[in-house]
Amino acid sequence: MGLLVVGSLGLDTVATPFDKIENALGGSATYISLAASYFSGPIRLVGIVGSDFPKEYIEMLNNHNIDLEGLQIVEGGKTFRWSGKYHYDLNVRDTLFTELNVFEKFDPIIPENARKSKFICLGNIDPVLQAKVLDQMENPQFVVCDTMNYWIEGKKKELLDLLPRVNVLIINDSEARLLAHEPNLIKAAKIIRAMGPQILIIKKGEHGALLFSEETIFSAPAYPMESIYDPTGAGDSFAGGFTGYLFKTRDLSTESLKRAVIYGSTMASFCVEKFSTKGLEELSYLQIQDRFRQFMNLSRFDED
Amino acid sequence: MGLLVVGSLGLDTVATPFDKIENALGGSATYISLAASYFSGPIRLVGIVGSDFPKEYIEMLNNHNIDLEGLQIVEGGKTFRWSGKYHYDLNVRDTLFTELNVFEKFDPIIPENARKSKFICLGNIDPVLQAKVLDQMENPQFVVCDTMNYWIEGKKKELLDLLPRVNVLIINDSEARLLAHEPNLIKAAKIIRAMGPQILIIKKGEHGALLFSEETIFSAPAYPMESIYDPTGAGDSFAGGFTGYLFKTRDLSTESLKRAVIYGSTMASFCVEKFSTKGLEELSYLQIQDRFRQFMNLSRFDED
Repeated sequence: MGLLVVGSLGLDTVATPFDKIENALGGSATYISLAASYFSGPIRLVGIVGSDFPKEYIEMLNNHNIDLEGLQIVEGGKTFRWSGKYHYDLNVRDTLFTELNVFEKFDPIIPENARKSKFICLGNIDPVLQAKVLDQMENPQFVVCDTMNYWIEGKKKELLDLLPRVNVLIINDSEARLLAHEPNLIKAAKIIRAMGPQILIIKKGEHGALLFSEETIFSAPAYPMESIYDPTGAGDSFAGGFTGYLFKTRDLSTESLKRAVIYGSTMASFCVEKFSTKGLEELSYLQIQDRFRQFMNLSRFDED
Repeated sequence: MGLLVVGSLGLDTVATPFDKIENALGGSATYISLAASYFSGPIRLVGIVGSDFPKEYIEMLNNHNIDLEGLQIVEGGKTFRWSGKYHYDLNVRDTLFTELNVFEKFDPIIPENARKSKFICLGNIDPVLQAKVLDQMENPQFVVCDTMNYWIEGKKKELLDLLPRVNVLIINDSEARLLAHEPNLIKAAKIIRAMGPQILIIKKGEHGALLFSEETIFSAPAYPMESIYDPTGAGDSFAGGFTGYLFKTRDLSTESLKRAVIYGSTMASFCVEKFSTKGLEELSYLQIQDRFRQFMNLSRFDED
């Protein structure tokens, strides 16, 4: 039945202190699907592009066992475009422009085949659209959802309506503080879990990630990186690795969730090593497992 | 021979969003000594106070197997005083006043008995004084050193002269970035270790701590705290727990250093649960070990 991924596809123009790239492949659904594709297939991607969307990107996604039956290609339409510029320390970025184009009228229609999917990853789009996706599903069992400041501030009610329908919410630390109106992350996590999601993951960039569930709090380290080439897509890659691993194993135990967070962090670390999606295009599962073990060495300690 | 601790003793007036306390026990040497005292004794404290320093504090320190032979009590002098106010999120504090008093003329004289100490923890004082302490030691083998922005900016040369003489430098993330002139912490750590200390620990507050040595990078989680009562002394308690554990075990292997970082984090977490030194005054080693294991559960994950 596959893992359903819904989100944006775009053409990104990105400048970092090191380099610049124009009209490179981007979008939340793209990064999520690519990251998840290394764990198990098929990935069923639902999104929208214009007829200007390069054929080579379609081919590359297909080659990763990503099913594009649900990709709407609008004849004569223009693909979503985003441009950003990262500052020296790479934690701050300015959006130079956003052109919604065909994305403005995106109405996610889930192909018949994909409606049976039990595992769903909702990329960061309007919570109204995220809810529309869930409305079409026959029997969703594990729903992972990303969101951002923009929706927390602009569509709070719609987001709060959605949260009881998701199993895992993945947000970053500033989003968690904003959503909960609480600066302490441990308190904020309690408040957010009471809004619906059984599991909350708070991403903290260079400080790693925290997993909160009924049973546990788990602190995952960040991979020590001397140079981050392009941070774009790191959060989506995390969501893809996390969901992909759980989809592969069908194991939702606490121990498995912890491993999934590490696999998410692993995919994010590969993502930022190259521009655009390049860091996720030519990996082997061996490389992924090797980095998983590096995460283990990084945080492991024993009693006397 | 004991563990030598040199630093400040003071009377702190602290306001947090929750409460306020006046002339409470404070100072780097105080927190370091108390935290270290739970691991092994004796702790030999070298510092300075005025004759206004309450007898009950002297007694409390004595009761923790802290040898005060090296404590200079200036007859008619006033003890160092500091006052600070913490903001709502407790990560930001304003210094309301600092009265150096007797501390202004502090000249650390190491008692004969303590000059043989092999383990030394230099609290955050002028690097010129820290060097003076080392000059008096017969055969120092393991020197742990704390410093701060004030000395990095104001006494850079003196600090750089000192660093090759210390084994472990403990600073926080903003201090590391300042000292190395480098925003990336992994790169900053390399730069700082090249200045002399074989081992560098970067404290990141609510994000845990990083240990860097020739052999390893270790990422320690932060203890998940819903309410921090008073952050004063957390960094010193970390240094005390870290050094105390290593002094106890005399094991400087990588695995032992990792455990020491967790014991440091453990003592810091107890410190901030109460005002002033109260959180460090009545612990049992069982409580400390229990929290050590909680740190283990927090960050542990296994392969499939």
